Amino acid sequence: MPKLDLDAIPQTNATGYPPPFDAPVQGRWYRRLAPPSGLTDFAASHVVLKPGAWSSQRHWHGDEDELLVMVAGTAVLVEDEGRTILSPGDIAVWPKGICNGHHLINESESDCVFVVIGGGPNRRRADPPAGGTYSDIDMLFTGDGGYTRKDGTPYPTRRSA
Amino acid sequence: MPKLDLDAIPQTNATGYPPPFDAPVQGRWYRRLAPPSGLTDFAASHVVLKPGAWSSQRHWHGDEDELLVMVAGTAVLVEDEGRTILSPGDIAVWPKGICNGHHLINESESDCVFVVIGGGPNRRRADPPAGGTYSDIDMLFTGDGGYTRKDGTPYPTRRSA
Repeated sequence: MPKLDLDAIPQTNATGYPPPFDAPVQGRWYRRLAPPSGLTDFAASHVVLKPGAWSSQRHWHGDEDELLVMVAGTAVLVEDEGRTILSPGDIAVWPKGICNGHHLINESESDCVFVVIGGGPNRRRADPPAGGTYSDIDMLFTGDGGYTRKDGTPYPTRRSA
Repeated sequence: MPKLDLDAIPQTNATGYPPPFDAPVQGRWYRRLAPPSGLTDFAASHVVLKPGAWSSQRHWHGDEDELLVMVAGTAVLVEDEGRTILSPGDIAVWPKGICNGHHLINESESDCVFVVIGGGPNRRRADPPAGGTYSDIDMLFTGDGGYTRKDGTPYPTRRSA
């Protein structure tokens, strides 16, 4: 059935972020759409941010393009240059390798909802992906699914599936 | 600027469909989002369907996953099994190679708006893509950007960029 039955797809607020970086994403409830729907060319997530929640720590990807479609509510997009309000129908894109970290914060008093697409060679090739960097905290994400400090010291947790 | 300024991106209703298959998509106004925004891992389009317009002739892809997010208005998704109403926030997916043609028809009296993502090896590899098939008309689309009848006879027009 091409129209997804979102209620039938598991929703989770799991994160692999080590403390204390996990706290701001506790109100991020997401559904991975590709595995249950058979998509293999790109990843997709349906995300609900509760009031106050962050979409992630502010980050950029070395080898994965991202595109976000705002569906309901509003959120603040934070980047190096500042803040931008995203409203339903707005689209934001982050081509891989542009070293300008981004995340969304729901500063409203209602849930906001968006769909985010991620694609890149880590979805399809054997070479290790390049990982990426968090802008505001002492953390990197690595191609093997781990987290390290910027000096390479590993954190004990892993990225969630 | 990650938030796209849609008004600054060219909008077109161009189609490469040969007559008479081009008539139902004259009210399909779309913007290609990847070229102006630097995305290379997948293609994305912002589409406005005027009342009565079709998103395409009903088709499926041999080698390209598709995902659609409904943003505003309503449309009817038509497939082999029948009709499904899509409303804002609904998501539909079409994994490549499933031979069940789909398209959307705006049967309402207002514009509808959606964002559609397409990914696949034709975005990234040298091998010719597999093309695909239109369900209801005597037409195929080929990996080299052309159209033929189902017996292989070429049509004179080409897919639009």
